[in-house]
Amino acid sequence: MKRHLLSAADLTRDDAELVLTTAAELRSLADRPIKKLPALRGRTVVNLFFEDSTRTRISFEAAAKRLSADVINFAAKGSSLSKGESLKDTALTLEAMGADAVVIRHSASGAPHRLAHSGWVRSSVVNAGDGTHEHPTQALLDAFTLWRHLGESKPSGLEGRRVAIVGDVLHSRVARSNALLLQTLGVDVTLVGPPTLLPVGVESWGVDTSYDLDAVLPKVDAVMMLRVQRERMQGGFFPTPREYSRRYGLDGRRMATLQDHTIVMHPGPMVRGMEITADVADSDRSVIVEQVTNGVAVRMAVLYLLLGGSENPE
Amino acid sequence: MKRHLLSAADLTRDDAELVLTTAAELRSLADRPIKKLPALRGRTVVNLFFEDSTRTRISFEAAAKRLSADVINFAAKGSSLSKGESLKDTALTLEAMGADAVVIRHSASGAPHRLAHSGWVRSSVVNAGDGTHEHPTQALLDAFTLWRHLGESKPSGLEGRRVAIVGDVLHSRVARSNALLLQTLGVDVTLVGPPTLLPVGVESWGVDTSYDLDAVLPKVDAVMMLRVQRERMQGGFFPTPREYSRRYGLDGRRMATLQDHTIVMHPGPMVRGMEITADVADSDRSVIVEQVTNGVAVRMAVLYLLLGGSENPE
Amino acid sequence: MKRHLLSAADLTRDDAELVLTTAAELRSLADRPIKKLPALRGRTVVNLFFEDSTRTRISFEAAAKRLSADVINFAAKGSSLSKGESLKDTALTLEAMGADAVVIRHSASGAPHRLAHSGWVRSSVVNAGDGTHEHPTQALLDAFTLWRHLGESKPSGLEGRRVAIVGDVLHSRVARSNALLLQTLGVDVTLVGPPTLLPVGVESWGVDTSYDLDAVLPKVDAVMMLRVQRERMQGGFFPTPREYSRRYGLDGRRMATLQDHTIVMHPGPMVRGMEITADVADSDRSVIVEQVTNGVAVRMAVLYLLLGGSENPE
Repeated sequence: MKRHLLSAADLTRDDAELVLTTAAELRSLADRPIKKLPALRGRTVVNLFFEDSTRTRISFEAAAKRLSADVINFAAKGSSLSKGESLKDTALTLEAMGADAVVIRHSASGAPHRLAHSGWVRSSVVNAGDGTHEHPTQALLDAFTLWRHLGESKPSGLEGRRVAIVGDVLHSRVARSNALLLQTLGVDVTLVGPPTLLPVGVESWGVDTSYDLDAVLPKVDAVMMLRVQRERMQGGFFPTPREYSRRYGLDGRRMATLQDHTIVMHPGPMVRGMEITADVADSDRSVIVEQVTNGVAVRMAVLYLLLGGSENPE
Repeated sequence: MKRHLLSAADLTRDDAELVLTTAAELRSLADRPIKKLPALRGRTVVNLFFEDSTRTRISFEAAAKRLSADVINFAAKGSSLSKGESLKDTALTLEAMGADAVVIRHSASGAPHRLAHSGWVRSSVVNAGDGTHEHPTQALLDAFTLWRHLGESKPSGLEGRRVAIVGDVLHSRVARSNALLLQTLGVDVTLVGPPTLLPVGVESWGVDTSYDLDAVLPKVDAVMMLRVQRERMQGGFFPTPREYSRRYGLDGRRMATLQDHTIVMHPGPMVRGMEITADVADSDRSVIVEQVTNGVAVRMAVLYLLLGGSENPE
Repeated sequence: MKRHLLSAADLTRDDAELVLTTAAELRSLADRPIKKLPALRGRTVVNLFFEDSTRTRISFEAAAKRLSADVINFAAKGSSLSKGESLKDTALTLEAMGADAVVIRHSASGAPHRLAHSGWVRSSVVNAGDGTHEHPTQALLDAFTLWRHLGESKPSGLEGRRVAIVGDVLHSRVARSNALLLQTLGVDVTLVGPPTLLPVGVESWGVDTSYDLDAVLPKVDAVMMLRVQRERMQGGFFPTPREYSRRYGLDGRRMATLQDHTIVMHPGPMVRGMEITADVADSDRSVIVEQVTNGVAVRMAVLYLLLGGSENPE
């Protein structure tokens, strides 16, 4: 595995499968009374968040603490460091203070790459979401959830499975990272959404696309609903919320057309009633809460593999 | 003991005495050089604060860390999660991330009950103050302080003692939780304040009430002064600050009418010169600083009993 | 050593050398895989920041955690506690919660002294910057950096070395603490800046002063550039930014006049292009990143000596 995790595209199939099987080992910790390992004792993980995301920050914080790392939270938003020009000096400072890993969230696509590839730091950089670009640990936790719920003994069992990613693909770093990672794992991906919310040039992603959710649903093993970012859907080119919900929302009627084993996923936070109805979100098919739990396990695996590496986590 | 601590009314007399005697054991830690026990190692305590309260948050954080728990602070104020409708999804997320206890502070009375009783979470919920409703760990630390200062060997020695709770009872969650808990422990409680600051229906609380502080003071073993919430005392029905201070403030003259053993308490933060004069706050009778120390011990006991339970804390 | 670290003037030469040699031992930890010692396990360090300073807060937090102390961050800014009148009650509260050390940053010069000398607290108080007054751990880390880079085996080797401190001395707590500490260590200090940015009565500091940077540079072993605080340089008495930069900025041309062994220092954060050009900041002479690393080691030493004291850190 490389030293950084910036993009789902950085992961070879072997890398991805290693993260998933390591996460499976670590995931079993959650059922023990003491959910903690000494693997990263004495290491320092800095959560460098230029953008609010309590959910993602807490997930990384819990993951690092369960591996006995020290965690330092750095909410750069609003501070003088949130200006792009000083990213270099921020990076140099964190490195100099002994950060072993920097988990970065930034509103600018590409900020984690600048941090990692400018030669400023030797520590590992983990992309926790950059603009509309990527969110690779989200893709890993989604793949992990797919693997576990589709009943395969190994991650390689995902080969040939079919997943629909539905909604505002254009603005979604989750969609992009998932499309990349799932293809690496041999999964067939179909992006579903209105024409104005599918990216130009999406053909080059190597995935199928469709404007017709009802046609796709009966064929897939999992449906990933994306969060609607209403603030990005102003203007005449985009569907109205009502129209969006009618054509691309997942409700009980649509859920009934899924195969028996098909699961429903969502990266959260949900807009209940918009892209997903409450009865679907709370149904037996929904693995949304499980995704959150898996997020901690996958982030433990990523931090462990980037920082610890060679030895057994216990 | 129940799984949650939502209201002082949840505690039977046995429960309350168990918390107090456990806190007494843990309190003795404060005199050791290493103020730390491994009791909750590997457990995660989330401080979910929808309302600022640095003092209470730090007290719970110190309590959890002294028991070796991992602490995650979640200042929900201002985030999208501060809206009531998503309390459910917040709860599910924290649970899924492995929170063993959620300490919640919320401006809405009843929010901790919703969290605990909606079937969303299996973790323990501790009410750290909800609206004008309750603040049960404050009542426990007050009872603990009473117990220690009145010289009884067991908490049951509080039976028959007399306590005055003075001031803005109407808006005080501290007063409500104390009235409930102290009665459970057999203490005689008198609520003292102007008619407009005593709740309608206070008769049903089973306590005495009085508008005349001077008549009550010589009879009690402890005086609990409440913080005046000036922002809630606008309008013609309430006394002016000057009138309030004259009729219900505790000054040196009034303190002189107390019995020799009577102690003065305040939950903090104080408005010196308003409900209490500086000389009273800093006098030998004042146990206000001791209350803060006891707060950490009582919160350790609550977390220990809710999460650890059966074994000895060491 | 005294119980508190409030001013660089509190340190005798023996004290200062003890901090530096202890820091040197602890500094070597940074090269180990496990950068952590049990020296302060069970102790609680509170970061009480009335003023934002992510950089300084993180440095103290990392230092305390590497010594296994529990850290509680208390951002008092904006809270009711940020008002001067309640500093006493804040102090009493932190003490009562079991704080062993309070690291305080405050915009008011003298606040740490009030905290330490009012008899409110028994815990150790560390000044992390008060107004325009002092920042003693910055001076210690600068002295440590000087010592290491000038190649002496003992801190006493700094005797007779020459250092220029350049820029807005008037508003700089860094300059004041450095002037005090470096003289204690026998270093010859020259303050360089425009007349309006040198303090009235600077003669009493016992240091040399100069308005002519070019004349001073060839004579010194180290140049400490101060951050320009533009917001404090409004009005006709102060140089314009362009004039400031031309007369007191350190650029490549000026750097070329330094002796071969002379190093360039800056406390950060830098305003690149104003008091220092990017090529100087990133040159081989610049030890700015090293200063950050040394800051953690020096703060570890200070916390260790104030709280642990007699024993060997390992």
